[in-house]
Amino acid sequence: MVETSTVPEIFSRARKLIEPGLHRAIDSLSMELRPLASYHLGWTDENGLETGGDQGKGVRPALALLSAEAVGKPAEAGIIGAIAIELVHDFSLIHDDVIDNDIERRHRSTVWSLFGTGQAIILGDALNALAMRLVLDPTLIGIRPPTEKDIPHLASAAKCLADATAAMISGQALDMAFEHFNEIDVAGCLAMEAGKTGALLGCASSIGAILAGAEEKQITVLERYGIELGMAFQAIDDILGIWGDPLTTGKQTFSDLRQHKKTLPIAIALTSKSKHANELSKLLLEEELNEFEIERAAELIEKCGGKEAAMTEAKHRFESSLAVLEKANLDSYAKSELINVAHFVIDRKF
Amino acid sequence: MVETSTVPEIFSRARKLIEPGLHRAIDSLSMELRPLASYHLGWTDENGLETGGDQGKGVRPALALLSAEAVGKPAEAGIIGAIAIELVHDFSLIHDDVIDNDIERRHRSTVWSLFGTGQAIILGDALNALAMRLVLDPTLIGIRPPTEKDIPHLASAAKCLADATAAMISGQALDMAFEHFNEIDVAGCLAMEAGKTGALLGCASSIGAILAGAEEKQITVLERYGIELGMAFQAIDDILGIWGDPLTTGKQTFSDLRQHKKTLPIAIALTSKSKHANELSKLLLEEELNEFEIERAAELIEKCGGKEAAMTEAKHRFESSLAVLEKANLDSYAKSELINVAHFVIDRKF
Repeated sequence: MVETSTVPEIFSRARKLIEPGLHRAIDSLSMELRPLASYHLGWTDENGLETGGDQGKGVRPALALLSAEAVGKPAEAGIIGAIAIELVHDFSLIHDDVIDNDIERRHRSTVWSLFGTGQAIILGDALNALAMRLVLDPTLIGIRPPTEKDIPHLASAAKCLADATAAMISGQALDMAFEHFNEIDVAGCLAMEAGKTGALLGCASSIGAILAGAEEKQITVLERYGIELGMAFQAIDDILGIWGDPLTTGKQTFSDLRQHKKTLPIAIALTSKSKHANELSKLLLEEELNEFEIERAAELIEKCGGKEAAMTEAKHRFESSLAVLEKANLDSYAKSELINVAHFVIDRKF
Repeated sequence: MVETSTVPEIFSRARKLIEPGLHRAIDSLSMELRPLASYHLGWTDENGLETGGDQGKGVRPALALLSAEAVGKPAEAGIIGAIAIELVHDFSLIHDDVIDNDIERRHRSTVWSLFGTGQAIILGDALNALAMRLVLDPTLIGIRPPTEKDIPHLASAAKCLADATAAMISGQALDMAFEHFNEIDVAGCLAMEAGKTGALLGCASSIGAILAGAEEKQITVLERYGIELGMAFQAIDDILGIWGDPLTTGKQTFSDLRQHKKTLPIAIALTSKSKHANELSKLLLEEELNEFEIERAAELIEKCGGKEAAMTEAKHRFESSLAVLEKANLDSYAKSELINVAHFVIDRKF
């Protein structure tokens, strides 16, 4: 048994490793966009004053760095991937907040609610473009120019990122469509979540290995680990989106119900054979739900077994993510840390 | 003297060459996004019925295909670049229409005004990701997989696209900032326009050559041609944005003045020594201008020499674009067509 770092240590190390590069990347944005990016990342407040803080758990960068280590290379080999993944994630949060009309994220006002829709659109676009530039040209943040041997790896990493971004966007488009559907089956819901969350976590968990020039088999296994982990992550997110504590999640109570989201517990409940499914279905047809109705809906979802089945799905995905790691030759220390991260994802409360 | 095609012939050939691939690319989008993309491209109306029509002049794809031919390769070598550039351009139009609150484009309702802001954001994001995917993986539209030798060219093309996209976004961010500025100098305005329009035309005019594996010198010259052409294009656009005929431009009369845009003729007029500059400056400080004031502002800009100087700038950039083409060894037939396109840009009325 190898002694591994705790998950907070893993995340904190990843944040530290990407910090200088992330700052340099943000500094490369135009003067108009820099303060907005800095606000979103939690480095400054709405007046541009430094907060000394940082946002985000750092799951994605940690996975990217671990994926380089898992194939026997130093974490540094994955740094541009880790930063690019973080930037794509931030781009998606900023645009999703506009789309979903969310006024708060991580206990702070969202970019659009403070600076306007136009600014949020352009900032998201800028972070997305920055991510692609960075992977294709590491010199942007002062990393040595790629050698001829590196170029195919950069191109593969860029492809991984573009594919994952496209899948994430398709997932989000499906999620938006579901808000207007009355019926939705569990398979459709899982497909949406595979796109929305699975794809980017799959890329995060393999981009470091891709950049490090790993074998195809290692890359596939790490990507699969990330997709399964992403599905577990999303199932837990769905549970927290209904029953999570606003104090820890930073979201309103029952926030997904307020937004007519059709997440996994809801899809499971609606398609269950429970006698409560009918009442739930009628309730969710309402344009606007009052506080009593929202609470009742949450209760009905639980009675239909939606909460429990979503937790079962999360555990099942968690187990798959661990099982797949055995299918390639990976560094044992890094593998133990990937396992620790999976445990964290399944146990998280926020 | 080589006999060349007319510009409508050049554009129409380019549209035909990219059409099957563009359709295949759009078909690769998810079911939710396809109808929106198809509407934006003018293939279907708001009810999803085929229009038999097509939108857009096709300047950008034509440039991309000509750039492959300019370095002695078949136009086909530039096809994925041409489609990718068109997709990035469409992405930018869709987002800009949301940001600028424009309800009409090319005589049709804009995507956001028909389908909502959220849908327009996600569609733009999807087209952007699709463009990057396409350049990195031509098999997406049924083109044979890249050989080992092709990979560095694909990576360079992707870098060209990502860099141009980032520059375009910075230009748009600056444009948005200018709406709230009272004073703006000509240099700042030109920097904004170099980003907003020059960068993508620079990439369009070289991406085919990059994909075809051209020499560095040829690529640099073609890119420079495109940037100069883009600046000429934008100066003409600025003139049409104030004095263009709504029947041909598809925009409202004086549309840029209505939106407090600080375009080149305005920047030139405001910083001119003309006795009318002061009245113009005061007028533009107003939050809302009535029809009489808008017409007066346009008149003052003209009296301050803004229209004439913008035309001079356009002609100067046009001449530079032609001059730079002499600085590398290019195919003479393709070069003549690039010259024809430049003439079209400077003479256009829409």
